[in-house]
Amino acid sequence: MDLIAPILAGDRLALARLLTQVENDTPEGRAALDALFQRAGRAHLIGVTGATGTGKSSLVNQLVLHYRKQTGKRVAVVAVDPTSPFTGGALLGDRVRMRDLSGDPEVFIRSMATRGSLGGLAHATAAVVQVFDAAGYEVIFIETVGAGQAEVDIARLAHTTIVVEAPGMGDDIQAIKAGILEIADVLVVNKADRPGVESTEHALRGMLELAHPVRRVFRHHGKVEMVKAPSAPVEHNSWIPPIQCTVATEGKGIAELAAAIACHAEHLRQSGDWERRERARLESELETLIRETLVARFRTDIPEVHYRQTLERVFTRALSPWEAVQILTNGGLSK
Amino acid sequence: MDLIAPILAGDRLALARLLTQVENDTPEGRAALDALFQRAGRAHLIGVTGATGTGKSSLVNQLVLHYRKQTGKRVAVVAVDPTSPFTGGALLGDRVRMRDLSGDPEVFIRSMATRGSLGGLAHATAAVVQVFDAAGYEVIFIETVGAGQAEVDIARLAHTTIVVEAPGMGDDIQAIKAGILEIADVLVVNKADRPGVESTEHALRGMLELAHPVRRVFRHHGKVEMVKAPSAPVEHNSWIPPIQCTVATEGKGIAELAAAIACHAEHLRQSGDWERRERARLESELETLIRETLVARFRTDIPEVHYRQTLERVFTRALSPWEAVQILTNGGLSK
Repeated sequence: MDLIAPILAGDRLALARLLTQVENDTPEGRAALDALFQRAGRAHLIGVTGATGTGKSSLVNQLVLHYRKQTGKRVAVVAVDPTSPFTGGALLGDRVRMRDLSGDPEVFIRSMATRGSLGGLAHATAAVVQVFDAAGYEVIFIETVGAGQAEVDIARLAHTTIVVEAPGMGDDIQAIKAGILEIADVLVVNKADRPGVESTEHALRGMLELAHPVRRVFRHHGKVEMVKAPSAPVEHNSWIPPIQCTVATEGKGIAELAAAIACHAEHLRQSGDWERRERARLESELETLIRETLVARFRTDIPEVHYRQTLERVFTRALSPWEAVQILTNGGLSK
Repeated sequence: MDLIAPILAGDRLALARLLTQVENDTPEGRAALDALFQRAGRAHLIGVTGATGTGKSSLVNQLVLHYRKQTGKRVAVVAVDPTSPFTGGALLGDRVRMRDLSGDPEVFIRSMATRGSLGGLAHATAAVVQVFDAAGYEVIFIETVGAGQAEVDIARLAHTTIVVEAPGMGDDIQAIKAGILEIADVLVVNKADRPGVESTEHALRGMLELAHPVRRVFRHHGKVEMVKAPSAPVEHNSWIPPIQCTVATEGKGIAELAAAIACHAEHLRQSGDWERRERARLESELETLIRETLVARFRTDIPEVHYRQTLERVFTRALSPWEAVQILTNGGLSK
């Protein structure tokens, strides 16, 4: 409990130490998370994802500078690199960042690399975000590299998800993954001073039209015309992701992007989606903890020798894994 | 049990039906997996992974044709697309494939798209592979798109993992993900008739040298020289991934690639890694089943009303998720 008072008083060193405890899932870290839980739930969580080379980190830096100048809000950045399970790819970006943002006591940057399972990473990221939230950081960026399921899972943490593309990242259509596009709340074409920006934007618009609901509104001379659903009344799922061009290195388009983010937050609050996302997130966290607790308890209850012997019978294919589970969980051999 | 006899007799329709049962994790599917388990464990599982646009599917097609012609072995292909959780991206490749490989009764192709969780996909892939293995398919390709953690997890199923690159996929260094490189047993530069093949190969070689162990062998005039570990005696971890250039569309380099794969299989058997990988795989499968069983049992034991009420107290932040878990698993509130 000693860890918490200094953090609420703004002690950065104490915060850094607690983040380490929480990342490593120590008993102290868990106790602190418990104590901080009721203070959390106020920050705007903004996920930023995109492939390497899209200039995602520069974009986040510029957004942080913008929020600091325009709103004075305290900002945290959690940089996650799930594509690099073996090497600490997050470190380089971190050092580049220090140059721009260090010295501002109201900005805190934390890099996380995969350790062990991906599920573990998503869990640790959620915990780190909760600490920042409880510590009074009002805007928290969760930055992930890549465009796979890993990023989809981590993006689920965020209220607003920004997907960053850049011109010339290979074939336009192939560079834009369908899965990641469908979680995007705001699309950014960064490096918009490069050749090919129009075709990237065009491809994104085309995919957006495919991804978002259209309605058959009328038949005209027997021909069915597909017209986009009108976005006028604020209703569930009525948000159509805007596309914003930026040149992060020159600060171009950043103010407009921040405005689009603010607009999305307002949409979430008015539509009730903000609360729905919070609830979904907490329920999923509870489910993860239940699973972990049950497995830990099972491992304590079953003698190690019994477990190894049963496993050995699976290795020799005398038992199928499913039969082994029935034996280990005392359910007998009935199928 | 009726499903199994026809499958062992070579009935393709029965096999297709069982694969659907197994993918959907039905009771019939589980029972069949149990019954087939002791027949499995004989196939050579070959993982093939790489980004979209590397020509991975054509490469697999050519390898299948090569195996059919040269060895007469029965071959199965499991095509997995984990980057596309919302749309069935695997289907197009499937149709292209049909043209080349259909009509050969000893080849079976199965496409899988993500449904629900990624963990579920890896699990379903393992189950489908086991069915093919038990049904007498001697070579099974597991093809995945992308280069994230998802592919790393699925690649763990395979005995031999092939990572496919192609020239001109963006900045050379960035296109090659460190994580995926370290699971590669054989590296392929496909589309090797394109410009830039030398620089892709050069970049791969450079990263291989970084990724694989070197030994300090002697000091010469006070200068430490780094020399690659001698690969002569077959020992654990002594495999250095070869790089093979191919032009899959013209069948170039395919025989050499098949030779490299055979060489790796021989290395695995002699070094004991084959058995080690099998054991690791079965242990991880057992752990997943235990986790699922415990959670299912918990959900049956806890009244739904009690669960929802506790969850509601988490939503209002009256309880932390951890406190809720203690209550739900009857562990009290002690920390």
